[in-house]
Amino acid sequence: MSVRIALLGCGVVGSAVAKRLIEHSDELTERVGDRLELVGVAVRDVSKPRPESGVPAELFTDDAEELVTRADVVVELMGGIEPARTLLLKAIEHGASVVTANKALLGEDGPSLYAAAAEANVDFSFEAAVAGAIPLIRPLRISLAGDDVHRVMGIVNGTTNFILDKMDRTGADFADVLAEAQELGYAEADPTADVEGYDARAKAAILASLAFHTRVSSAEVYCEGITAITADDIRAARKAGLVIKLLAICERVTDEEGSAAISARVHPALLPRSHPLASVREAFNAVFVETQLAGELMFYGRGAGGEPTASAVLGDLVQAARNRLVGRAGPGELAYAAFPIQTIGAAYTAYFIRLRVKDRPGVLAAVSNVFAAQGVSIESMRQNKDRTDPELASLHLVTHRAQEGALAGTVKQLQDLDEVDSVDSVMRVEGL
Amino acid sequence: MSVRIALLGCGVVGSAVAKRLIEHSDELTERVGDRLELVGVAVRDVSKPRPESGVPAELFTDDAEELVTRADVVVELMGGIEPARTLLLKAIEHGASVVTANKALLGEDGPSLYAAAAEANVDFSFEAAVAGAIPLIRPLRISLAGDDVHRVMGIVNGTTNFILDKMDRTGADFADVLAEAQELGYAEADPTADVEGYDARAKAAILASLAFHTRVSSAEVYCEGITAITADDIRAARKAGLVIKLLAICERVTDEEGSAAISARVHPALLPRSHPLASVREAFNAVFVETQLAGELMFYGRGAGGEPTASAVLGDLVQAARNRLVGRAGPGELAYAAFPIQTIGAAYTAYFIRLRVKDRPGVLAAVSNVFAAQGVSIESMRQNKDRTDPELASLHLVTHRAQEGALAGTVKQLQDLDEVDSVDSVMRVEGL
Repeated sequence: MSVRIALLGCGVVGSAVAKRLIEHSDELTERVGDRLELVGVAVRDVSKPRPESGVPAELFTDDAEELVTRADVVVELMGGIEPARTLLLKAIEHGASVVTANKALLGEDGPSLYAAAAEANVDFSFEAAVAGAIPLIRPLRISLAGDDVHRVMGIVNGTTNFILDKMDRTGADFADVLAEAQELGYAEADPTADVEGYDARAKAAILASLAFHTRVSSAEVYCEGITAITADDIRAARKAGLVIKLLAICERVTDEEGSAAISARVHPALLPRSHPLASVREAFNAVFVETQLAGELMFYGRGAGGEPTASAVLGDLVQAARNRLVGRAGPGELAYAAFPIQTIGAAYTAYFIRLRVKDRPGVLAAVSNVFAAQGVSIESMRQNKDRTDPELASLHLVTHRAQEGALAGTVKQLQDLDEVDSVDSVMRVEGL
Repeated sequence: MSVRIALLGCGVVGSAVAKRLIEHSDELTERVGDRLELVGVAVRDVSKPRPESGVPAELFTDDAEELVTRADVVVELMGGIEPARTLLLKAIEHGASVVTANKALLGEDGPSLYAAAAEANVDFSFEAAVAGAIPLIRPLRISLAGDDVHRVMGIVNGTTNFILDKMDRTGADFADVLAEAQELGYAEADPTADVEGYDARAKAAILASLAFHTRVSSAEVYCEGITAITADDIRAARKAGLVIKLLAICERVTDEEGSAAISARVHPALLPRSHPLASVREAFNAVFVETQLAGELMFYGRGAGGEPTASAVLGDLVQAARNRLVGRAGPGELAYAAFPIQTIGAAYTAYFIRLRVKDRPGVLAAVSNVFAAQGVSIESMRQNKDRTDPELASLHLVTHRAQEGALAGTVKQLQDLDEVDSVDSVMRVEGL
């Protein structure tokens, strides 16, 4: 008897998984305790040659619906919501375990899939869906199951980290660096999902669900991308000893009534250069996890790419196959807590604000009064001559943690202030 | 029905585990799917008050042998080889799953315990035995099961890292910093196990076993501690842009016949200051894992302490309890590979060598000739006036990777050389 494996999709990751299954068959047999037999690979166009995968031509099929009914473990690497969802539900219905790297699907509808898998007593695993090769899902689901997670904060999108890192190191503009990233294959022809933060948002939804035992969907995660970030922002951050990163942040917070709630958000944020996430370069990913007992943990590695993602998929696959052989699935998801999700207006963060003011006495007092009136406390302030207009001064402020709502009110009042020429940038600061 | 838990030992970690079991009982019930019932805590002296653990007095017992026969999961936190081994074997024989943080025992005799547990179809887990709170064992056992680990290199002993970090930052001598670490509770009254590298050696044995699917015991791991490291060594390293860390290194290597073998060793090593392990401060732990598919991964966190270690123990405990409820154990160890263990003499490393030579023409040529004759290639060399003797110069050399045997031969010939006054220090360099 062997364990029958069906692959859905044969792109960069699918090819790497297939190649490994074929070339390392004996070694995988040792690790599983039985042979992993690749019974089919579903693709859209079976006539397209895929020599890099090493898959014999007769294993390709365009009938994914049929394929999932004759496998013990279905590995879904096609991405997107449909037909992936329908196929996975069908696979589960037929008693197959599922391994997937599909963050978009899990972000949108993970909980119903987890529930279907639990009902059918099959494994549903997705280590590759967040932070590629980095073991993060299993530590959250299992290793920290006896602890309480307070916060998960990380760089979970390689494309945007590559762009921001390059902007930081060269001083170049967003558009130029994006074009370069596209040329190098770090960004797709249509970069929307990455640069608008949608990819990171789906991952934040998955992480928040696991960390807080609560169903969080992508739509419930606040999301801002990096398209508005300018070379000026980067320069100002650098001067202040800070660096801009696109962060996914999932926190357990206490709302105004003192009840537990969850804040889940994706947005660019300034970090001190001494913060461990600040030194994450190029397309690498890194995730900080803060818990009650363990304290601070960090996980670092490659968040994308064929082989790194295949590593995570294969780990899940070996585990699912071993579970099949002993006739039962591993533990499923735990969504017992059902914390409410906080709106972004209620979130507390520190801010970095750049504004241009009239260069005359009394300006600092007027500006400070606006902050004081809104209850936003200033942590530090730096004033310089404006580089273009001799009548103006540039003012860089860092606030203490304040509620988004109060900060928005402050910014509005600053804009109305006679002494203020323009509010040029408002960015969140983390890790202070 | 509940899951009956027995605790062996109630020190810092045991108290933290007991406290959590008692105070977070409802939450743990949600996570497990059933109640975890603490049925007893074995201690040497039942009359000693332990209010910090929150354990009711009637649960303490000095009859550990009896206790292990009436539990579903036995959590061993007493440490040391005996009676821990006998008690765990008895627990397994009675059908209990085991959670342990006992690296000394696992380093000495892990494989026979894993085998006994597999035979009895019970869980045997030990996330807390290496790098405390950092999820590392489960990623190696499961997440990377479809990948091939090439190398595991890390800082796995907090005490020695605290001492070396302090020496690096203050320039103080080993003895002074050790005394301070003892005062602060970072080092024990008898610091032998930490400073001689024995604790790290046991962890290296465990990591090598898991990473390479091969039985490696502590006795097979080469081990050098940090007691010989002087303030001079630290100063010279600093000047060269390097930092000294005590590293546990487990590598898959190719021996002279071209066969696969394993190198497992613990020793101080110089790292470039830009290396991620170089910035691991105080008593923190961090482990680098390099694999064929995933590339480089890093795990960082607290390697010791009551609560961090309890976090790892509780994760194992929740998992073991969930497995009990569905009536089967998780996958056991895989020791199918049986690679031979390389002796230290055959290992390849780069070296940093400090020597004092006569300050006269021709010395560099004579020294270089010795290296050339042994086939050891010099990567860089720096000559300075000696600080104490005007007739001497100090010479700092970094070699390319060379075999330990050849290097030892080189050092011996250097000592015999007329031009050489003294060879002051020979240290390995990693991460170049």
